[in-house]
Amino acid sequence: MRCTYFVAASLDGFIADSSGGVEFLKQVDSEGEDYGYQEFYSTVDALMMGAGTYRSLLKFGTWPYAGKPTYLLSNSVSDPLEGVIQTNEAPARLLSQIYGSGKQHVWLVGGGKLASTMLSQGLITEIVLSLVPVMLGTGIRLFSSREARITPVTLKNHRVYDSGLIQMHYHL
Amino acid sequence: MRCTYFVAASLDGFIADSSGGVEFLKQVDSEGEDYGYQEFYSTVDALMMGAGTYRSLLKFGTWPYAGKPTYLLSNSVSDPLEGVIQTNEAPARLLSQIYGSGKQHVWLVGGGKLASTMLSQGLITEIVLSLVPVMLGTGIRLFSSREARITPVTLKNHRVYDSGLIQMHYHL
Repeated sequence: MRCTYFVAASLDGFIADSSGGVEFLKQVDSEGEDYGYQEFYSTVDALMMGAGTYRSLLKFGTWPYAGKPTYLLSNSVSDPLEGVIQTNEAPARLLSQIYGSGKQHVWLVGGGKLASTMLSQGLITEIVLSLVPVMLGTGIRLFSSREARITPVTLKNHRVYDSGLIQMHYHL
Repeated sequence: MRCTYFVAASLDGFIADSSGGVEFLKQVDSEGEDYGYQEFYSTVDALMMGAGTYRSLLKFGTWPYAGKPTYLLSNSVSDPLEGVIQTNEAPARLLSQIYGSGKQHVWLVGGGKLASTMLSQGLITEIVLSLVPVMLGTGIRLFSSREARITPVTLKNHRVYDSGLIQMHYHL
């Protein structure tokens, strides 16, 4: 059972601009290169996200995760899309329930705040960070501040792409 | 003429804990491995830092940069060490003066805030980031928030060490 924070960030540590936009990813757009996304996505059984990420994703038009259950940790979204399960369970309990239902790999999508909560609670087992060669100046943090605690992580592998994107895979 | 932000950070983007401590660097302590520090330092003609970094460094005891001029951007330090030049010049003007005096390579040491100011003003020409495989939870940010502006950077090279530290060298 594993929960992966698979995410792209700018060199200065932002996953989106202040309004949730990911314009900066265009910087590394490259014909036929998905930076391992499909390979990763094919191993995912369920997704977890917060309301901010959900609302940002809606702006793209077509829901990108059709066919896989998405657990939306919120109680403020009215009429969520089909396949999106809104819940106000605590992340730890929800994750146990997801694992209990036979799903083995959960993708934590976006969400600096949710990511921080889940990190603090030891719920994230892997981080796959794609560091995009661009600075944003400000925006939504890859990691918001949590309580101070020095926690070693293990670099399992990494890959460098022609665009200058570096992808690092850590185990927690 | 170049100004390098040569810095180590935790995976969650902190260069020090909240009180300026760098305890987390012990994580990658390794006999005979200095992660390119001496090689880098030998190319440096002058250093720039803010008062926070200066005060943190004093706690280490011996001044680590004896023999190279250190420009301290502050007006609050009384009786700075020999070789430390306190100044309240603006960073841009100071840097021109340093370059004008024949010094070609300036190292911006520590200082999330000073780094942000200098980045915003286009004064930093290179970033050498050593990403340490550890999470801190909170502390002094590698980059504090600035005004929003998408700025591409170029990955020049990178190196991965046995300890799991990844060092990335960007040109701005």
